[in-house]
Amino acid sequence: MAPAKVTNKSREQRRRVKSTPKEIAQRIKDMSKGIVGDIKKHTDPTFITMQRGRSNVEFDEKKKILQLGDKTTSRQFLNVAHAKKFMQTMLVSAKAHDYLQHNKTAAIREIYYELKHTIANTKENTFEDQTESDGCIVDLEHSVDTIREKLNLHANPKGTLYGDIVLRDKMHHNDTFNCSKLGRGGWSVMSRIEPEEIEFKSVNAKYLLMIETEAMYERLVEEGFPRKNNCLLVSTGGQAARGTRRLIARLHQEKKLPVYCFTDGDPYGWYIYSVVKQGSMALAAHSEFMACPEAKFVGMTLDDIKTYGLENVTERMKDGDIKRAKEMMDYPWFQNAEWQEQLKKAIKDKVRIEQQALANKSLSFVADEYLPKKIKRKEFLP
Amino acid sequence: MAPAKVTNKSREQRRRVKSTPKEIAQRIKDMSKGIVGDIKKHTDPTFITMQRGRSNVEFDEKKKILQLGDKTTSRQFLNVAHAKKFMQTMLVSAKAHDYLQHNKTAAIREIYYELKHTIANTKENTFEDQTESDGCIVDLEHSVDTIREKLNLHANPKGTLYGDIVLRDKMHHNDTFNCSKLGRGGWSVMSRIEPEEIEFKSVNAKYLLMIETEAMYERLVEEGFPRKNNCLLVSTGGQAARGTRRLIARLHQEKKLPVYCFTDGDPYGWYIYSVVKQGSMALAAHSEFMACPEAKFVGMTLDDIKTYGLENVTERMKDGDIKRAKEMMDYPWFQNAEWQEQLKKAIKDKVRIEQQALANKSLSFVADEYLPKKIKRKEFLP
Repeated sequence: MAPAKVTNKSREQRRRVKSTPKEIAQRIKDMSKGIVGDIKKHTDPTFITMQRGRSNVEFDEKKKILQLGDKTTSRQFLNVAHAKKFMQTMLVSAKAHDYLQHNKTAAIREIYYELKHTIANTKENTFEDQTESDGCIVDLEHSVDTIREKLNLHANPKGTLYGDIVLRDKMHHNDTFNCSKLGRGGWSVMSRIEPEEIEFKSVNAKYLLMIETEAMYERLVEEGFPRKNNCLLVSTGGQAARGTRRLIARLHQEKKLPVYCFTDGDPYGWYIYSVVKQGSMALAAHSEFMACPEAKFVGMTLDDIKTYGLENVTERMKDGDIKRAKEMMDYPWFQNAEWQEQLKKAIKDKVRIEQQALANKSLSFVADEYLPKKIKRKEFLP
Repeated sequence: MAPAKVTNKSREQRRRVKSTPKEIAQRIKDMSKGIVGDIKKHTDPTFITMQRGRSNVEFDEKKKILQLGDKTTSRQFLNVAHAKKFMQTMLVSAKAHDYLQHNKTAAIREIYYELKHTIANTKENTFEDQTESDGCIVDLEHSVDTIREKLNLHANPKGTLYGDIVLRDKMHHNDTFNCSKLGRGGWSVMSRIEPEEIEFKSVNAKYLLMIETEAMYERLVEEGFPRKNNCLLVSTGGQAARGTRRLIARLHQEKKLPVYCFTDGDPYGWYIYSVVKQGSMALAAHSEFMACPEAKFVGMTLDDIKTYGLENVTERMKDGDIKRAKEMMDYPWFQNAEWQEQLKKAIKDKVRIEQQALANKSLSFVADEYLPKKIKRKEFLP
């Protein structure tokens, strides 16, 4: 007997609950009990998870985030085409359960290496490639309606946090520290920012500014921007890592902090913003954990070039960027006059403008003029 | 009149001195005075710097670091082939002087943008590309015998520091913090770690462990490795950024901290180690600021595969890695039996082994067995 089909509604409830590690471990156990029951009853053991791929991704117009639809997919052990994947999924499920029981966490590359071995008396390896275990992790996330961080798994960390926020790391001697008092370096954002581990003790800020480049983060710290404007800075160093997205989303959701995003003026930068705001297609099931649907875009826009006289310091757009712009024009969440205009302009003019190009006015221009004025006048893109 | 030729010996003295920002500014001024003198005397203004490129890079067998030789090169304003570059070098020199005067710092991309403009009444831009201003920065570094960080310039930051070390950021409210008390995230290493800015208030550690991957850093923190073994951890996230190299080198030189390096077992990882140890060809002039000639290599080696039974979790080496191994075999600083053996093995067996592959034994194996035993028995490569 396969476990009872999880309906879209019950899934939402399970996800909405602030699930504890114990609850998640229990769900893995329940799923496994179903499989064991199948075996005992001599019926075909079946693992059920959500269908991925664009055909099951939808943009929720009300919540303004990307979500998975309710199409499921099943994997039968007695189907030759499914058997290996079934075995791999069971290995990953058992190991994740083990991590949760023993309060251990692991990188997704580590679980791959930990589980890789040659099956006794065969020449068959459990896994040939990390993509195989990664796929199983996603299946398990969907099957028990959670994110890998709550399975005690994580990807690599990246990103930096600065500002008047006191964090407490409950898993590390209850270290309590203020991220505006760590010099100009700031706090290295961990790969896992779950509430069971990282507590926001106090936040004294009017908003959170997400920044694409580390160098612009350093500029704003040097100019004293966060203190003067009473805000937090989070640099993502390109596309935001999951830990950084989770940090931003939690501050947005739990502390009701407005999120403003500041990227280069090109399709790549705008896409970074859109992922922080409404999630990505690849992680559509996780938007409720990771997205900030109320986030606003503060710059750079292609209009900034004329407004601030930056014609001299634009860069030629690459073919890949133009291709991306064309794709983005069709995405439901870019269907508004402002973004359509930017994307059309990008395709037509084929120029891009970097955040750091503002240094052409003066080093402090971004901190003294550009950002404060735009934020004060609410000159945002949706 | 060009400034008096700086001999190799006087250069060494100038470099050895812990030059203050004021002294560096004065050197730029002296260089400029020579140029202005040339103009007033109607002779050809000439800028002198060190020759770069392999022909002027040498491996100092005594100091065990890469260094620049004493070949100089000059740039004449009245030579059509030199004129534009001459102009660019003057712009960069004036701007760096300006930063030093006003206690400002800038990323190398910012100085490029700040200086880029169309020259009045022409269609000529001062710079077309950042590679042009980057070249001028290197010329200026060599001309006034310093590193760009002391010209208040810097590249992007990368890297994380964890452990019982108290830092004080003199440029940021004298923030004083212990890098073992920032939760598991650790301190985000700045792009600039000059003594005028970052002071090491106290260091309680027996050695510093440099780690190639952020994920292995997280593993060791989770296992409590730094506390149990009384060491500092620095993760580089691949090739070490200049700020991170400077941090490691200063701790090595000022605090006499032994440095052990832990990378993937492949030519790319080994090269990361060699750059931390004796410097790189591209930055040969800066080795005294950046190198740790006494650093040791703790792993991964290709022998580890057999020793620890990791045959199942090796990876196939890519062609680029094999090419790199062949090049490395000829480098003077890899001329010892141990490294020649590793490189030969790499070329012959065409396999590599990642740090994280140790998870195949168990997640804690690296922290409980592999590293402590190797370090205790001094099983290092030179």
